[in-house]
Amino acid sequence: MTGTHSTPAFKTIGVITKPGDQRLADTVQGLLSHLRSRQVKVLVDESAAELLGPEACPVHPRSRLVSECDLALVVGGDGTLLHAARSLLDASVPMVGINRGRLGFLADISPEDMTERIDEILAGRYNEDRRFMLQGQVFRAEDCLMRSDAFNDVVVHAHGMVRMIEFDTMIDGRFMNSQLADGLVISTPTGSTAYALSGGGPVVYPTLEAICLVPICPHTLGNRPIVVHSGSRIEIRIRAHNSVPAMVSFDGQVNHELEPEDRIVITRRERQLRLIQPPGFDYFQILRAKLKWSERP
Amino acid sequence: MTGTHSTPAFKTIGVITKPGDQRLADTVQGLLSHLRSRQVKVLVDESAAELLGPEACPVHPRSRLVSECDLALVVGGDGTLLHAARSLLDASVPMVGINRGRLGFLADISPEDMTERIDEILAGRYNEDRRFMLQGQVFRAEDCLMRSDAFNDVVVHAHGMVRMIEFDTMIDGRFMNSQLADGLVISTPTGSTAYALSGGGPVVYPTLEAICLVPICPHTLGNRPIVVHSGSRIEIRIRAHNSVPAMVSFDGQVNHELEPEDRIVITRRERQLRLIQPPGFDYFQILRAKLKWSERP
Amino acid sequence: MTGTHSTPAFKTIGVITKPGDQRLADTVQGLLSHLRSRQVKVLVDESAAELLGPEACPVHPRSRLVSECDLALVVGGDGTLLHAARSLLDASVPMVGINRGRLGFLADISPEDMTERIDEILAGRYNEDRRFMLQGQVFRAEDCLMRSDAFNDVVVHAHGMVRMIEFDTMIDGRFMNSQLADGLVISTPTGSTAYALSGGGPVVYPTLEAICLVPICPHTLGNRPIVVHSGSRIEIRIRAHNSVPAMVSFDGQVNHELEPEDRIVITRRERQLRLIQPPGFDYFQILRAKLKWSERP
Amino acid sequence: MTGTHSTPAFKTIGVITKPGDQRLADTVQGLLSHLRSRQVKVLVDESAAELLGPEACPVHPRSRLVSECDLALVVGGDGTLLHAARSLLDASVPMVGINRGRLGFLADISPEDMTERIDEILAGRYNEDRRFMLQGQVFRAEDCLMRSDAFNDVVVHAHGMVRMIEFDTMIDGRFMNSQLADGLVISTPTGSTAYALSGGGPVVYPTLEAICLVPICPHTLGNRPIVVHSGSRIEIRIRAHNSVPAMVSFDGQVNHELEPEDRIVITRRERQLRLIQPPGFDYFQILRAKLKWSERP
Repeated sequence: MTGTHSTPAFKTIGVITKPGDQRLADTVQGLLSHLRSRQVKVLVDESAAELLGPEACPVHPRSRLVSECDLALVVGGDGTLLHAARSLLDASVPMVGINRGRLGFLADISPEDMTERIDEILAGRYNEDRRFMLQGQVFRAEDCLMRSDAFNDVVVHAHGMVRMIEFDTMIDGRFMNSQLADGLVISTPTGSTAYALSGGGPVVYPTLEAICLVPICPHTLGNRPIVVHSGSRIEIRIRAHNSVPAMVSFDGQVNHELEPEDRIVITRRERQLRLIQPPGFDYFQILRAKLKWSERP
Repeated sequence: MTGTHSTPAFKTIGVITKPGDQRLADTVQGLLSHLRSRQVKVLVDESAAELLGPEACPVHPRSRLVSECDLALVVGGDGTLLHAARSLLDASVPMVGINRGRLGFLADISPEDMTERIDEILAGRYNEDRRFMLQGQVFRAEDCLMRSDAFNDVVVHAHGMVRMIEFDTMIDGRFMNSQLADGLVISTPTGSTAYALSGGGPVVYPTLEAICLVPICPHTLGNRPIVVHSGSRIEIRIRAHNSVPAMVSFDGQVNHELEPEDRIVITRRERQLRLIQPPGFDYFQILRAKLKWSERP
Repeated sequence: MTGTHSTPAFKTIGVITKPGDQRLADTVQGLLSHLRSRQVKVLVDESAAELLGPEACPVHPRSRLVSECDLALVVGGDGTLLHAARSLLDASVPMVGINRGRLGFLADISPEDMTERIDEILAGRYNEDRRFMLQGQVFRAEDCLMRSDAFNDVVVHAHGMVRMIEFDTMIDGRFMNSQLADGLVISTPTGSTAYALSGGGPVVYPTLEAICLVPICPHTLGNRPIVVHSGSRIEIRIRAHNSVPAMVSFDGQVNHELEPEDRIVITRRERQLRLIQPPGFDYFQILRAKLKWSERP
Repeated sequence: MTGTHSTPAFKTIGVITKPGDQRLADTVQGLLSHLRSRQVKVLVDESAAELLGPEACPVHPRSRLVSECDLALVVGGDGTLLHAARSLLDASVPMVGINRGRLGFLADISPEDMTERIDEILAGRYNEDRRFMLQGQVFRAEDCLMRSDAFNDVVVHAHGMVRMIEFDTMIDGRFMNSQLADGLVISTPTGSTAYALSGGGPVVYPTLEAICLVPICPHTLGNRPIVVHSGSRIEIRIRAHNSVPAMVSFDGQVNHELEPEDRIVITRRERQLRLIQPPGFDYFQILRAKLKWSERP
């Protein structure tokens, strides 16, 4: 989807960053200066306030920032983007990544040309990619102990030792298999180029409605990655006699310890994340650069 | 989809088999005897006629069999099923596999219980799975040299020597990458458990609308399997300076030699193959048996 | 090496088992009864004493058992064998595995035919396989914090979260590479069919003088398993800015937490483990059974 | 091994190149001019003569060049080096690669600094790496149909179609397994970074006395690469009922068609190839560059 509005495409802009990372201060300050010169309202939360010093601008809680802004600029690395995505999803706030450091898979803007790129976006020249996210819930007997969203992946894994965990996987209520493995990655297409790829999973085109299940170091060599509909209900059950500490992790950021017989239920969030990209965004170009694929000579 | 008709679900039944394979004769004869006892009209083509001997029943060309029958019973192994699928697609004739020998991935019926299973199907108790197929066209300059369908996969590969071929891949008109590899498998979900799996591709759930591209022995280690929308237009171009003989193969059965600068264009066939399975068909059970996954103890 | 002594090949036999595993009690009791009937001296340590009850036989510390026996019978699974191997190495006591449950890779005897097999061994009809083991030392600055042997593998890995660790690998003092990965398995040939195999490593013939380094879920797709001389000095250095908790694990049993800049130095133990196998031991037969390779029809 | 002779280390130098590749003419001419200025005797065979034009220098058959020179300079790519290696092995002539184009795995000299590097080598400052090679013989019943050496690999493979071949593998006379696969690579350590790597094999340190067997697209997922002693006798038998055309290929250059029941017997050549490298040769540096491993920041 490409917008070409004549009036400013976005009027209230939230700026989110990685708390406490002083290396981002210059970028965030430059970003704020530029936005102020463009007659848009700017909101920051505690993550940016810390970098900007007192009196730089009024600071709001993340929840208010999210509910009031109509575009979020997220300054940081992949971790910062994943964190922001989970908080922006419910309010359908579109997100732009500004990546200090190396290029990420999310087609972020670099600080060097961010002013130019942001002006384009404010002028309505941008591409909007809609990416689905996952929701995971942890059940112990009948109780839901916790839930979290994930933009990249939900990972069930052993922790604390080199020992494999045992678990059953059900897809839409049907038994798929029992595995003995270091863990299982349940990945969105967005996450297919992250941890799932290291585990041997395929690249999944970002807008494909599919979820990939990638076993990590499976004991049985025939346990291969499997790609299922995004609408599938995936349930992982820690086996009753599993004696190794297990954990579930959402985007590698939200963690919860698991006990034998705990169940993790994973489904697609109906709402999609709105990812704003510069016009001319080319996913394959990013793949070629990141995966060191050959360029056409 | 499960039918539960009170009148016979199918009235005219075509029987297709592997020409010249005498090991199938008993099964085909038993099948015909059973069908005659069930008041359905039976059609055979040359593939079965040869096994049945003269006067067994009138023989029709495959094209007439396909246009007149409303169910096809296909006796043989995976190769026979793939061949039949390509001829049944256009007429939307549903297909049942009767597999002499080991279990296949297509949930075929075994000769041992075929009479029972066929009675169930004739009584309308069955599952109908719709599987998409691919169409490939080979272009040299502006000329279309040939086209064929594929149920499992279209494979572009070197032949005749251990040498890699060079080719470019375009997805929906956009350049994806240049590869130096033994070949590339472009696979349907049905084909994901065939050659693509040996090449390191993921299992893809049969009804997912996705195509998987799996490089065979790629020179660049970052060239990984990629899963795209089934609606994608995939174009493979043999590089101009490629000096190794190349070939394209449809289901490993229809082959065509390629020259430098030839282009293979692959798209999803709109029409889907109708695959009839016994009620209670369970894809995961087949995966567990074929891939030697662990059973729940 | 095959012995064919006319006098009893072994006179003092140590019995080692897994402490507290009551499922092994019958096997251990049966074993002791049989050994007593064969005029050999039997020694047990605490591991077996617990299963046998008071007064069953005099109990010695493991160290005395090891120094006095000239053959060790080890009852249990892979974990019990690995543990025993590390304590038997220094005294060069040959080891026989008696595996309750499924067949292991170490060509263990099953409880069903153990009396027959043991009589063969006592009669000098056996095969002796010599397997090398690894020694790992952990250094912090100049201090050696701990050392342990490993029969299967030394694994350096992240723990407690889904986050990759960063480390450098040096081989014989030369820099090999820097990796970002879940971990690295440094495996003996014996361990090549254990965790290293799940991580994508090759099978290494048991008596080959080689060590295999297998990265676990490496971030860089080109980081592949590498096989080096068994005489190599392998040094892993946790990168200074690595912020993820790291751990080193010996055979998955002896663990030690690591800090940034810690170094793990791994070398081959000069002494080899003596593994006694029934005559006619066939490594490939075990591979075929365990890896589900095809049998010759 | 590093030589530091005061007299010229080599007196008669053979120059070998790729016949008919005009892009190499400048390099070969520059090389000859330089060698003449260094008071060494230079021999060329037909491969270089063609590039140099008439009267450039006397031309000898390859066999005489090999028997008279005490160093061979080989100008070309990997294919030229592999071809030369097979002809130089028997006479124990050490070889230096001069690689026009990209860096190879064999630590070749680039044309840019070849004069400097060659002077170093003539002055005795060099490293000599000894690499073993394989010999393969093809037997039909009792007849040996052909034999060839291989520096990288012997590959048994299907050709002409996408169909798997069936074969048995014996190691030292013992049955290892039956496989259904596109083929099998039997690789030296030198070849471990060539085709075997694309097929999923490990990197094997160049001087390790080991042979790696890597199945290409095996039908059985448990058929993994296996590393055995270099002294092993490897025998591949094409299965009697194999109906797919099969071929054996040595370094991808010498090919021979196979029939059912043909046997290929592969053993290590006792003599080793002498590979001359510039002083300071670092195998890991080459791996890092070629496999795009991370450099230490």
